[in-house]
Amino acid sequence: MSEEPSGADDAAEELRYHVDGEVVPASAATVSVEDRGFAYGDAAFETLRAYGGEVFRWDDHAARLAATCETLGLDHGLAESDLRARIDETLAANDLADAYVKLSITRGVQPGTLDPRPEVDPTVVVIAKPLPRGGVDSEPVGDGPAALQTTKTRKPASRALPADAKTHNYLNGILARLELRVTGADEALMLDPDGNVAEGATSNLFFADGTALKTPSLDGPILPGVTRRTVIEIAEEEGIPVEEGTYAPDAVREADEVFLTNSTWEIRPVATVDGLRVDGDGVEGPLTALLSRLFDRRVEERYYDGERL
Amino acid sequence: MSEEPSGADDAAEELRYHVDGEVVPASAATVSVEDRGFAYGDAAFETLRAYGGEVFRWDDHAARLAATCETLGLDHGLAESDLRARIDETLAANDLADAYVKLSITRGVQPGTLDPRPEVDPTVVVIAKPLPRGGVDSEPVGDGPAALQTTKTRKPASRALPADAKTHNYLNGILARLELRVTGADEALMLDPDGNVAEGATSNLFFADGTALKTPSLDGPILPGVTRRTVIEIAEEEGIPVEEGTYAPDAVREADEVFLTNSTWEIRPVATVDGLRVDGDGVEGPLTALLSRLFDRRVEERYYDGERL
Repeated sequence: MSEEPSGADDAAEELRYHVDGEVVPASAATVSVEDRGFAYGDAAFETLRAYGGEVFRWDDHAARLAATCETLGLDHGLAESDLRARIDETLAANDLADAYVKLSITRGVQPGTLDPRPEVDPTVVVIAKPLPRGGVDSEPVGDGPAALQTTKTRKPASRALPADAKTHNYLNGILARLELRVTGADEALMLDPDGNVAEGATSNLFFADGTALKTPSLDGPILPGVTRRTVIEIAEEEGIPVEEGTYAPDAVREADEVFLTNSTWEIRPVATVDGLRVDGDGVEGPLTALLSRLFDRRVEERYYDGERL
Repeated sequence: MSEEPSGADDAAEELRYHVDGEVVPASAATVSVEDRGFAYGDAAFETLRAYGGEVFRWDDHAARLAATCETLGLDHGLAESDLRARIDETLAANDLADAYVKLSITRGVQPGTLDPRPEVDPTVVVIAKPLPRGGVDSEPVGDGPAALQTTKTRKPASRALPADAKTHNYLNGILARLELRVTGADEALMLDPDGNVAEGATSNLFFADGTALKTPSLDGPILPGVTRRTVIEIAEEEGIPVEEGTYAPDAVREADEVFLTNSTWEIRPVATVDGLRVDGDGVEGPLTALLSRLFDRRVEERYYDGERL
């Protein structure tokens, strides 16, 4: 595999996706309009990063995908190794080393209407796109520091839609992002039904106030992010106190540092919360900078044998 | 158009659906895996009935669809007459007079990830299937009297997902229906976040207790069903008192009569609630029977010039 993602060439070749067991050109990558993934968003998915041709923390993603399918009662019957092979085939077909990957499993087409049948002929889709990484001392992967804005759109209670299931029902996050059109912010700070902070539309939230690195506890309606867990592990290894708890929005607004995590952004600093600058000294606080550097180092040691790209 | 749906023939011809402006065989009716309707359930839809080749209460469905698109910030730019023409073309292509119709509008394929862009190239899909109607003194269209079961899965609060928007995010209802696998019931009695009755997974709820015909108010997380409205109109025309309010589950469990409404079921009597028979005398109470007969008569007068099929 080349180190230069092929999709970055000038006259970009058409990407190739994996649909239902076949690698096909993106323009031919389709699903039936009667697929339950389309009709109802009845599908589980994972967003993953590939570094140096290898998927980051596959075991964690595979476990979360299995948990989502369990919640959906979606017994797809596919081995974890089969799913991973489809991702590897998609990366290879596009000659991609550093990539964004999305793996989806739908309940497929079933007779009848809403009732899910136990017998499932799943539709499996893998999308991959070039996503260069920055690495230590390089530009961050994300879109620059985030402007975070509290939204009126709240996270649903987990007894309505379980927050730990990652599914194609993403309208709640879309409605939150729609609110940002008027504010110019680029990530939503979403609250739980009780008004405490939960997470972003596509990211987990961290903040620091001089006593600890803090993040909303998984007891709330929070997606258990793989990057979230990685950051907690790194902080604990460094002896940085980490607190998972329940926090009012003011705790975030008054924090010294705030950052967001997800698989594609990795660690993304937050510049403003509800229009207020996070701190007076600059965008990225010292703890955010330290954790970003340690995150990069971990990726490089694991996926690039410590070599700089 | 024939009065006999062609799809009812023995060696059923393949149905034809309307996708993105073209009528195509069902097996070729597909959308891109990058369509936001597939990726996020980012789509509005309506389920409609055609009687005698004509869509029932199109104006109501068109208005609700417009309201859903408004909520989603989905400015699809298509005239109502264009959407109706696509439905008519789909019915004609299948030689269908009495049919189930599903019309969906997605936000299409857009660059980037979750953020919806204002410029939309929508994907419009129309599915139609034969659905004979019973009519006065005939068998009801539904699947027989329903067994209703209160579920642990609650409706989301409207500030998380607006209940009056009919979208491809249908997982909440699917999770409720999944609970019925163990009980053998066939429709969920879903409660709102406060524990009051809201609606079924795909239906509105009515019940009667000797004082009035009662149904949860649209102040709660309730889809404003077209059949729901039709039933209220019919009852009011007959001088039957109608009350829209907030009700505890016990009010339904102790009611004399309970029925469900949606576009395909029309009026569907409920035989049991949480395993308890609704009344001692038989399945369909006198008020349910009266409203069903009046509903049938209204359909026949309007769509069949009063002629029996």
